[in-house]
Amino acid sequence: MVQIPKTPGPSSPAPRPVPTSADVARLAGVSRATVSYVLNNTTSVRISEPTRRRVHEAAKELGYVPHAAARSLRAGHSRLVLMPAPDFPVGPLYSRFISELQWALGRLDYTVVQFGSVGLHGDEAVRAWAELRPVAVLVPGAGLGPQGVEVLKGSGARAVVTLGSEPVDGAHALLMDHEAVGHCAGSHLHDRGRRRIGVVVPREHGLESFSLPRLKGVRDALHGTTATLTELPLAYAEDSAARLAASWRDLDLDAVFAYNDEYAMLLMRALQDEGVRVPEEVAVIGADDLMLGRLLRPRLSTVHIELPSGRDLAELVDRAVRDPAAAPETHKVLGATVIHRDSS
Amino acid sequence: MVQIPKTPGPSSPAPRPVPTSADVARLAGVSRATVSYVLNNTTSVRISEPTRRRVHEAAKELGYVPHAAARSLRAGHSRLVLMPAPDFPVGPLYSRFISELQWALGRLDYTVVQFGSVGLHGDEAVRAWAELRPVAVLVPGAGLGPQGVEVLKGSGARAVVTLGSEPVDGAHALLMDHEAVGHCAGSHLHDRGRRRIGVVVPREHGLESFSLPRLKGVRDALHGTTATLTELPLAYAEDSAARLAASWRDLDLDAVFAYNDEYAMLLMRALQDEGVRVPEEVAVIGADDLMLGRLLRPRLSTVHIELPSGRDLAELVDRAVRDPAAAPETHKVLGATVIHRDSS
Repeated sequence: MVQIPKTPGPSSPAPRPVPTSADVARLAGVSRATVSYVLNNTTSVRISEPTRRRVHEAAKELGYVPHAAARSLRAGHSRLVLMPAPDFPVGPLYSRFISELQWALGRLDYTVVQFGSVGLHGDEAVRAWAELRPVAVLVPGAGLGPQGVEVLKGSGARAVVTLGSEPVDGAHALLMDHEAVGHCAGSHLHDRGRRRIGVVVPREHGLESFSLPRLKGVRDALHGTTATLTELPLAYAEDSAARLAASWRDLDLDAVFAYNDEYAMLLMRALQDEGVRVPEEVAVIGADDLMLGRLLRPRLSTVHIELPSGRDLAELVDRAVRDPAAAPETHKVLGATVIHRDSS
Repeated sequence: MVQIPKTPGPSSPAPRPVPTSADVARLAGVSRATVSYVLNNTTSVRISEPTRRRVHEAAKELGYVPHAAARSLRAGHSRLVLMPAPDFPVGPLYSRFISELQWALGRLDYTVVQFGSVGLHGDEAVRAWAELRPVAVLVPGAGLGPQGVEVLKGSGARAVVTLGSEPVDGAHALLMDHEAVGHCAGSHLHDRGRRRIGVVVPREHGLESFSLPRLKGVRDALHGTTATLTELPLAYAEDSAARLAASWRDLDLDAVFAYNDEYAMLLMRALQDEGVRVPEEVAVIGADDLMLGRLLRPRLSTVHIELPSGRDLAELVDRAVRDPAAAPETHKVLGATVIHRDSS
């Protein structure tokens, strides 16, 4: 990795003290309360236009910025929505969902921060989130239990929302039903006349909460049919795919659900390099409906996944914040449909 | 998009009041100062083991979590490192860099939050960051000017670090020299005997701060040679690539630097569908060295980009926080080397 050496250099002047609302009050010749009313746009108190202007000018001259933490201490709650950064590799689909959500919450005047939880686990992570006193917490993936919800609520969070495959006691749940993704893929392959079906299970850590429900979905789809299911562990690396492809004829499979489009691209390349014909000898289907699947030859069949809109989720958060005593809501929010192209 | 309807439900009991350190002090039968000393592990004050135990037990029983904001108000500064979320689409390379950085800062006892800046611009964004009173701010991309640095420092940030192509007055700069990426690619194509060189310029908003320096790098590499350079605007969409490929013979190019591996994959597919042979008729090179380039046929040549290690950057942030009066440091941190495969 590129090294950053320490460069010694001449010292610049010591930093100025941070201006406070008391400094603004002094310069404007008003009380601190007046400064607070003006800068927070409080409508319940009448303040003359010239006074308002004097406060704004003094704040500008001093470079005064209100302190969100101090303000939330006074107000009793913040407008901070905390999202722990997910502990799984984030794909383009999820990235777009997150930025749409941030945009929608921003429109509702919330401040969204993504908390880097790398290296923090369980209770320790939850306490670190709670220390920031968020008004709402959105937790992707598994990892939060009912106790964690208690800690967050006990620290003033008015809404806790989980995005995952299981609801958690006390929290609103957006259920991401990844079994439906596998079910779609399994039914499609069965409908295409395939009976010896492989399912890729990524070896990468952090993907289990997606891959195991997808696997179960395929199993459920094939339940009661004559089709067989074979689990295919695969790392996202060329040599892992080459080894799997080299043993392909022995596995005697006529179809594979490759977990997602990226693993499908990896495996399809290895199969083609091995001389296995897609889809004649083996049908391949991915998931996520990424651009790259349309660029492969044969064009990759896939499961298109629909996430909830950021706007809908932002509205749920806002409702929950306004009414923290309301019973937790549970919504199934993941839509899955097959897009049939040339590989299956 | 999946709709989240409002589900009415029975109300659960109103939330309990948030426990404070005063509650802990009362239950443990000690002063608030003692609670603070114990829970912050203050070493300058001697407190007996039984008292410590009583405080910890009381805190646990009440579910008390310290308030990071209150603590930072008392301490005069926080341990919060704020990173505005970048305003460009984030690739796998950058994602890995961010999580490595978060991990390294976490090890140094900082709390890292990524601030969702969607919809906020310029001064407004800077003021929103400043309201959280971060001890350090890491700003990716362009968009922060010297005035913004002043606002942040005036609000107590001890270190402001930019990651981009230009240094900003008053801030430490990690210069990401994307000209070097283009220069590498241009020299490589010229060395391979190509003289009519196209450069893909993505139409997508937010990529200019990468694409324009890369374009300039190619131009510089070809300066003083007989080679020509043609700009090729391209949207990341199949129809845009198909249109470009359909007009390819008229363009009369024998090489193309495709901005990155994903645009290279898109363009190479369109060229091959059009019957243009790669690399015989046109050499193609991407950038980023993603897995997908190795899976294409012909295997994609690329520019491997080395980002600074998260650990080095975390140490720079920590040094800057400890010595806020030190002169801003500037480091060139982006390494670029060609990986020659079969497409060029």
